[in-house]
Amino acid sequence: MTPEEFRQAGYAVVDWIADYWATVAERPVTSQGRPDAVAAGLPTDPPAEGEPVESVLADLDKLVAPGLTHWQHPGFFGYFPANTSGPSVLGDMVSAGLGVQGMLWATGPACTELETVMLDWLAQALDLPARFRSTGPGGGVIQDSASSATLVATLVALHRAGGGRWREAGVDRRYRVYASTEAHSSVEKAARIAGLGADGVRLIEVDPVTRAMSPAALRAAIEADRAAGVVPALVVATVGTTSTTAIDPLPQIGPICAEHRVFLHVDAAYAGAAAICPELRFGHAGLEYADSYCFDPHKWLLTGFDCDAFWVADAGELVQALTVLPEYLRNAATESGAVIDYRDWQVPLGRRFRALKLWFVLRWYGVDGLREHIRRGVALAARFADRVRADDRFELMAPHPYSLVCFRLRGPDGPNERLLAAVNGTGRVYLTHTRVAGRHTLRLAVGAPQTTEAHVDEAWELISQAAALAD
Amino acid sequence: MTPEEFRQAGYAVVDWIADYWATVAERPVTSQGRPDAVAAGLPTDPPAEGEPVESVLADLDKLVAPGLTHWQHPGFFGYFPANTSGPSVLGDMVSAGLGVQGMLWATGPACTELETVMLDWLAQALDLPARFRSTGPGGGVIQDSASSATLVATLVALHRAGGGRWREAGVDRRYRVYASTEAHSSVEKAARIAGLGADGVRLIEVDPVTRAMSPAALRAAIEADRAAGVVPALVVATVGTTSTTAIDPLPQIGPICAEHRVFLHVDAAYAGAAAICPELRFGHAGLEYADSYCFDPHKWLLTGFDCDAFWVADAGELVQALTVLPEYLRNAATESGAVIDYRDWQVPLGRRFRALKLWFVLRWYGVDGLREHIRRGVALAARFADRVRADDRFELMAPHPYSLVCFRLRGPDGPNERLLAAVNGTGRVYLTHTRVAGRHTLRLAVGAPQTTEAHVDEAWELISQAAALAD
Repeated sequence: MTPEEFRQAGYAVVDWIADYWATVAERPVTSQGRPDAVAAGLPTDPPAEGEPVESVLADLDKLVAPGLTHWQHPGFFGYFPANTSGPSVLGDMVSAGLGVQGMLWATGPACTELETVMLDWLAQALDLPARFRSTGPGGGVIQDSASSATLVATLVALHRAGGGRWREAGVDRRYRVYASTEAHSSVEKAARIAGLGADGVRLIEVDPVTRAMSPAALRAAIEADRAAGVVPALVVATVGTTSTTAIDPLPQIGPICAEHRVFLHVDAAYAGAAAICPELRFGHAGLEYADSYCFDPHKWLLTGFDCDAFWVADAGELVQALTVLPEYLRNAATESGAVIDYRDWQVPLGRRFRALKLWFVLRWYGVDGLREHIRRGVALAARFADRVRADDRFELMAPHPYSLVCFRLRGPDGPNERLLAAVNGTGRVYLTHTRVAGRHTLRLAVGAPQTTEAHVDEAWELISQAAALAD
Repeated sequence: MTPEEFRQAGYAVVDWIADYWATVAERPVTSQGRPDAVAAGLPTDPPAEGEPVESVLADLDKLVAPGLTHWQHPGFFGYFPANTSGPSVLGDMVSAGLGVQGMLWATGPACTELETVMLDWLAQALDLPARFRSTGPGGGVIQDSASSATLVATLVALHRAGGGRWREAGVDRRYRVYASTEAHSSVEKAARIAGLGADGVRLIEVDPVTRAMSPAALRAAIEADRAAGVVPALVVATVGTTSTTAIDPLPQIGPICAEHRVFLHVDAAYAGAAAICPELRFGHAGLEYADSYCFDPHKWLLTGFDCDAFWVADAGELVQALTVLPEYLRNAATESGAVIDYRDWQVPLGRRFRALKLWFVLRWYGVDGLREHIRRGVALAARFADRVRADDRFELMAPHPYSLVCFRLRGPDGPNERLLAAVNGTGRVYLTHTRVAGRHTLRLAVGAPQTTEAHVDEAWELISQAAALAD
């Protein structure tokens, strides 16, 4: 494809995206298709000869779009938001066009340096502790997701806990990772990947009301393990748990980790973005104790997936844990020690130029514009929670410090399950569920830039009507 | 940003990309800037208020572009190619615009199903063994890179070798991974991540001429380990090593793995793409023994990074090794067992709609067009190798079955190092180096769609001239 052919096809694709966004609210939020509906519409063999872009775009409309769950729909309230924005897509387009591979500073100096600066910008915008800035021994990097950040933190923690033996000997003794019972499943997955197995994780009980980790239980677990000859390696504390956005108490957890020299990783995948607003920084109290921290601009900060921002207080330790340097990657810049090679900060070797989308987003919206977006989400969630609170049929199941509301019909689970199915079946909204203290609970998470009061009110109307029939 | 604002800015970015491709050949291949040159040009603080896209594009030209290594430049012959193409960028644009998160079938049915079909298309185009097709117990998935594919293969191998205990107990005995001394560094990195440490890897000697793994040495290593109570878990065989594109002999390695029930992963990251041409499938002889296989369409198949195509013969075993199912991800489709949830096929949870770029590439070029691209690369490398062969000052250091030529000035390393620096210093071409049998060796890898005979001839002229001065 020549540059001129790309130019013409590119305009058509830009139009397709703009039209999609302008009309996404009219589509059913989730696909109404059955498994295999999309695959059945595709040829079993790849084409022998090339086809024009128009044919592909026609099939995009006919085959693919009807088979999508529309994450950018204003009625999408499921999971956590994973919203993108115009400037994010523009940044991604430039990244795709440049086709840069930034594994080493030398293979993409601007790719590396823009990333370092963007992570410093974010650290400042969120008022993170100074230890995470690149001006000292710490620094930030883009990971694909908070799952990978948790894995990397696990590896650095093992390197530290092993006292230098882990790189050579691997997991040759019993190490333990601690997280609350409400922590994300990626903690268990990272431990399994790292060779600790499920037995290598201890889930710490939570406060029955706040759902936050009990520091006393954490201390007891660490002390019991030490007494039994198990080496405590890592605590993962969560700011904004996936189920209910509970906030583990870092001011109490931090000193326990410091006392026992256990690596502390703070996972603020969803809620971290809120800290761009000074009045929403309460979850970060005690963050100065953390050895590493992450949040996902791809969740609530208008930056398209994938973009997890991950910081460490000691970049040297991270690089020691992960680096492998074969001859074919040796170069003068690396050997000078004056540059960052981000391949040593992550699991894969290769990397895209993801800092571009952050740069476009931060410059288009500015910090003020991003604050406005976060505040709108919090206000919409509060508006919805007020509706729930005012209706005796319902109960709120957890505090809603951010933009997630957890609620349910009072009484047994069955009606709640039917309510969720009925509401999602309308195609107008999409909510997901969790269990809070064993009870089936609905989650409404706000985040899409197109979501307005009208959409939240419509969600409430649909829920309220369906509740009348769900008993 | 409204859809209309995006439309206008999107046209501008499409123009920027088309213009970049039309002029990339005129730029120096690598940045001439010093470390920190890009960072120093950026403000230390994020902007408080938003700025127009034009300002960002102006800074893209002024600050970022001069700090890039241009991987799409026709004179880029470094590492392995990582080329993109117009249709790939179009597919990525659609993916960014949709903002779909395909962790579960339910969160993106079309995202999942198009991926399954594209991997089947590729399996057919490369004539991979039937066991990898999704119509049986096997199937394919997109990983970010071959490094991650190797890691996933390592985890499945440990799950198998552990006989069911690894998920719970982790690495509680000594396991071993085998690869040749020429294998990619990601084998060692994956072993370290998986908790095996450097001691968990045995590098098997290679044939001094072909640089291919010695089956006899592999057998001896496995037998010695078994006798010593170490559990052989995984053999990683390479088709097209990073240094010289050596091909490990699968017809001999496969039966050894089968006999000892060791998981066999085949890493064809770069060279696998060549198998789209029937006459270039020699490296895949014996592939029917493999438990998993990967290659990178993002290297030599005109698909932008990241896109590693990874197949397993037993998807059930893979999912068993990696799955963790928290309440908030439970859904009816998953429980029906009728769908694929690709989150269980990879390290992270979230995933982008990467199948779109494969779909656009396969349909725009067709299999015939992609074959033409591969054949052009092979022919250009052969053309360059002929020049080297005809010049007594130089020696070829390895066979060149694909599009990589390894060569050096006869004699000591010093002149070769100076030659490389001088040639790269022209800004017209970019080559990298490796060591072959301990000797500093230059690598010229062809892959960019814009690279023609004129560019390869220019590279030879520059090398030939610099050689006269390098002694």
